[in-house]
Amino acid sequence: MIDTVRRCLARFELSPRQLLVAVSGGPDSIALLRALAEIAATSHGGAPTAAHVDHRLRSESSEDAAWVADECRRLGIACHIRTADVPQAMASEAGSLEESARRLRYENLTALADELDLPTVATAHTRNDQVETILHHIVRGTGLEGLGGMPEMRPLNEKIQLLRPMLDVSKAEVLRYLESCEQQFLVDSTNRDERFTRNRLRHQLIPLLTQQYNPAIEESLLRLGQTASEAQAALRSIAIEKSRTALIMREADRLVVATGPIASLPRHLIREVWVVLWNESNWPRAGMGKAEWEALADVTVGNRTAVSLPDLVEARRHVDRVIAIRRIRSSNE
Amino acid sequence: MIDTVRRCLARFELSPRQLLVAVSGGPDSIALLRALAEIAATSHGGAPTAAHVDHRLRSESSEDAAWVADECRRLGIACHIRTADVPQAMASEAGSLEESARRLRYENLTALADELDLPTVATAHTRNDQVETILHHIVRGTGLEGLGGMPEMRPLNEKIQLLRPMLDVSKAEVLRYLESCEQQFLVDSTNRDERFTRNRLRHQLIPLLTQQYNPAIEESLLRLGQTASEAQAALRSIAIEKSRTALIMREADRLVVATGPIASLPRHLIREVWVVLWNESNWPRAGMGKAEWEALADVTVGNRTAVSLPDLVEARRHVDRVIAIRRIRSSNE
Repeated sequence: MIDTVRRCLARFELSPRQLLVAVSGGPDSIALLRALAEIAATSHGGAPTAAHVDHRLRSESSEDAAWVADECRRLGIACHIRTADVPQAMASEAGSLEESARRLRYENLTALADELDLPTVATAHTRNDQVETILHHIVRGTGLEGLGGMPEMRPLNEKIQLLRPMLDVSKAEVLRYLESCEQQFLVDSTNRDERFTRNRLRHQLIPLLTQQYNPAIEESLLRLGQTASEAQAALRSIAIEKSRTALIMREADRLVVATGPIASLPRHLIREVWVVLWNESNWPRAGMGKAEWEALADVTVGNRTAVSLPDLVEARRHVDRVIAIRRIRSSNE
Repeated sequence: MIDTVRRCLARFELSPRQLLVAVSGGPDSIALLRALAEIAATSHGGAPTAAHVDHRLRSESSEDAAWVADECRRLGIACHIRTADVPQAMASEAGSLEESARRLRYENLTALADELDLPTVATAHTRNDQVETILHHIVRGTGLEGLGGMPEMRPLNEKIQLLRPMLDVSKAEVLRYLESCEQQFLVDSTNRDERFTRNRLRHQLIPLLTQQYNPAIEESLLRLGQTASEAQAALRSIAIEKSRTALIMREADRLVVATGPIASLPRHLIREVWVVLWNESNWPRAGMGKAEWEALADVTVGNRTAVSLPDLVEARRHVDRVIAIRRIRSSNE
């Protein structure tokens, strides 16, 4: 397990010292912290920093925070405790408990990394978490991007990255490692709460699929996720290339795109070219679903002449080009 | 439902007269036959032909065949009965009962279409069957191609196509249609046999997912399948284009491929280019899995100099090209 973490750091040219490790106190995060401390000790590169976010969801949550702080002291690692009042956040916003907790946790971790001037937040998501994520996405409905599961590295903001160095480590390896170095950890009682979709996936659906359908279901899902990621990356790179050829002019509120280089592409790529153009213009994507990209593809191939899209974007075909204009709301309107 | 079938025929420029319809006697196939008979009657284009394959799996199977023959007579449709001795085939080959029955059924249907000089075999797979297929593939392990589910049209041999005109029709629509025209059908007792994976998917897994995870799971799976098909089609078309650029020479036992146009492509596309080159050479693909295509990609980008592949294919890098040679077994060896 230490080797897997070390190889991941090497791949991204990172040392433990640059990492803010999210530590709940459970087996996965404690194993990651301990492994990073060992790597730091042998490489003389400086220790990682730990961060614990107290969600105030259980009566014993402040005891957990104190335990994590103690354990970090014992390991010689600096530890920062942050409080995220999930019950309060839930009162003022929509969404599930899981989603609110997750959002607040990442906000706190990003802010703390910013303060401490650390470039990378590390979380201890394992191979098992990856399987659950892929299955969760399939069950809830997903496209190719979601089917890929969690990426090993992704940006949290312009300066800070999220790294997941344990995506190739299984839960069983984590437990073996903890046992081998006699490392204690917390058992989170909410983990067995079947109200959480994630826990139902773990305790009900994955065991059912393993026992009755495919003993190697986890490997099958991981392989599908890997294929989907690679396919998505391939399509995105072709779309970037084609968008360069097709883009005639870009202004903050305007895109002029030649239809010639893209109209005869496969449908999926036409949509993907528009996604690339949208991203590069920083136009909002929240309202853009498959139907909206399809409508843009229709305008591109000439099946329709114009379309009104969310966030005041209008796209219209003019002979051999599509002009998309985003009206910025003015005070006169 | 009749409109959906009619639109499908129009899309492929087919008339009912050109179809050999596979009729088990169950609700789906009887509905398809009846709908095609109605379409033929209103378009004056001539009736379809029915084919029933008796699998000899149940004691009442010859009664089923007789019922289908009677019903076809009543509808004024020519009907051919073929016998496929599945128990006998099972005794001499590996694989599940389902697989043997399926293989024998398609063999019989293709041979019969050939005899009758009909270009198209039509089966009554519904929207629900498509959902089950996609989920079955996910559960058993699949790539992008399998995730797309059943195609609406695919070749059975060089002359005969398989058409599935009911992939957009739900089981509920089938039953409503049958009721509206008071059409009888057979109830197949093996459909409730939980030994069959397909039936377990239908009666256990899909209801569980619908009730506990996502009430719209069927739509989510169909949408994922659609996205995967489109992505696969897009990648294949780019790969075909790139393989044209890269191919220097093709002989029956030899491929010479320039690395320049493909070595810097995303990994997925390099593999896909080799799949295209293999297919176009009619080299056997049975032994070629992801690991083998990966090895070819490694030779292409220069990570290794040579690889031995199944079916006596050797691929080797020579400066700026890869030469793949398939040794045909000779009597001296």
